[in-house]
Amino acid sequence: MSWHRPSRDLRVACVSGFPFSTAIKVRFAETDAQGIAHHASFLVWLEVARVEYLERYAGGYQGIRDRGLEALTTEVNIRYHRAAVFDDRLTVEARCVDMRGARFRYEYRVTRAGELVAEAWTSHAVVDAETYRPTRVPDWLAEAMATAETKA
Amino acid sequence: MSWHRPSRDLRVACVSGFPFSTAIKVRFAETDAQGIAHHASFLVWLEVARVEYLERYAGGYQGIRDRGLEALTTEVNIRYHRAAVFDDRLTVEARCVDMRGARFRYEYRVTRAGELVAEAWTSHAVVDAETYRPTRVPDWLAEAMATAETKA
Amino acid sequence: MSWHRPSRDLRVACVSGFPFSTAIKVRFAETDAQGIAHHASFLVWLEVARVEYLERYAGGYQGIRDRGLEALTTEVNIRYHRAAVFDDRLTVEARCVDMRGARFRYEYRVTRAGELVAEAWTSHAVVDAETYRPTRVPDWLAEAMATAETKA
Amino acid sequence: MSWHRPSRDLRVACVSGFPFSTAIKVRFAETDAQGIAHHASFLVWLEVARVEYLERYAGGYQGIRDRGLEALTTEVNIRYHRAAVFDDRLTVEARCVDMRGARFRYEYRVTRAGELVAEAWTSHAVVDAETYRPTRVPDWLAEAMATAETKA
Repeated sequence: MSWHRPSRDLRVACVSGFPFSTAIKVRFAETDAQGIAHHASFLVWLEVARVEYLERYAGGYQGIRDRGLEALTTEVNIRYHRAAVFDDRLTVEARCVDMRGARFRYEYRVTRAGELVAEAWTSHAVVDAETYRPTRVPDWLAEAMATAETKA
Repeated sequence: MSWHRPSRDLRVACVSGFPFSTAIKVRFAETDAQGIAHHASFLVWLEVARVEYLERYAGGYQGIRDRGLEALTTEVNIRYHRAAVFDDRLTVEARCVDMRGARFRYEYRVTRAGELVAEAWTSHAVVDAETYRPTRVPDWLAEAMATAETKA
Repeated sequence: MSWHRPSRDLRVACVSGFPFSTAIKVRFAETDAQGIAHHASFLVWLEVARVEYLERYAGGYQGIRDRGLEALTTEVNIRYHRAAVFDDRLTVEARCVDMRGARFRYEYRVTRAGELVAEAWTSHAVVDAETYRPTRVPDWLAEAMATAETKA
Repeated sequence: MSWHRPSRDLRVACVSGFPFSTAIKVRFAETDAQGIAHHASFLVWLEVARVEYLERYAGGYQGIRDRGLEALTTEVNIRYHRAAVFDDRLTVEARCVDMRGARFRYEYRVTRAGELVAEAWTSHAVVDAETYRPTRVPDWLAEAMATAETKA
């Protein structure tokens, strides 16, 4: 229970905005008996945002998989500020930060009509799909990401 | 919309009981904003029952996968009689019927304290894990299933 | 295991097409270790289609809930013809049939680039949200549905 | 992206062990196309552990709901150390810490045969089920938790 988060000081650049956002409509199956979206549903939406992000900037997650790579999720941190309910239209903003070696992080803001619903960050490792050994983020991917972020 | 179900007359044998049952406790994440277990959750429970069934009678589903086979679900039919709610203790009874060629079916009863909650049947096809081509149910599996069912 | 499906002869009208369709992109979280979309994911997509259908033709499912009604799913029948995989773009066509008393049914076709992936039908009952007693489908809803279907 | 975690120094007591653990068997539906348990599945297992914990020490989560209270999840932090795969037998250890006002936290270790698979902590707020306003953790619940933890 004493893990250390990657130091914020080392963050690659001063990232001030989100270059990317995607829309999510809360599905009925994603709600629970509290009448709100189940908290695990948010992780699925963050993943949808990453997939859409990769599609827009880097040829798609499938392209990464086609090259024999997988991106594993190694850490998730999410803070829920407001409940989301069935049929809510949410915006998931995402940006890729801290790409170093085999690792990278995403940061997110989930909002509803401008109101903050949740904020999160996730860590990932690129691995070889056969051996599951960490593999350096390929240059083409790192460059695609860097280009995306400078547009923020 | 005009599919034909496998004729009931051809059913391998007169199956009168369920040789197998497993216990399910409804998880909070499986409920929805109607305050009841989401109807898709039942399909997961039927699958849990099949996995437990294979573990008891046929060396486990992983054993089938280890032999280069996969069992695909080709049809699901489920009728919901009563709602299940959070923390309900359910019993899922299952039996394997109609094993022929590459295909087999399971039938199920989901009950709560003896009361019928749902009944269902599912169809499956055994395929080669590489080619996804249908493959005859291996003899060892067919025999394990037949033995299980005669205990009913 | 001997339930009777609502007789096809009584179907309200000769429904030849689908007035409605919605797009689904397969999420990574919806796949399983067979490398394909888990079969239970389809039930979630059928529900998404119903929700979108109600939004287009009947003021939305939330509108129904706001009037103190719930629509329960009482039966699901689905036949899988082809596997769907991560990132597939699917079309879910839906139509509402057999609206009688407190009950109605939906029929669906799930396709990918015109190819049949699955077909399904589901049965539903309108209930009072307080008592969970079956309630006649309100006239405004029945009329909205009938209008939708004549456009097919 | 600059949230502050509750200071570790204020932690109610020096908690050195886990008084509670529950067993999880990875379901096939919980896997994804990477062949491993989807990372969101872990949040469901943490919730299962909390529910089992409350059942053992505090009369059950349903008992809390029956008193007109809900426990919301306000934060989840999880670090994945190893992948879990289909049919894995996992142990989820949990302990309740930092109960103050309307808030409390849980800490977790997920292991497989003694090997660390994931560690996590979650924050929660007790709210009135009608108004969704934060409500002080009731004394009976705080005492039940405290008793549980001294057994660690």
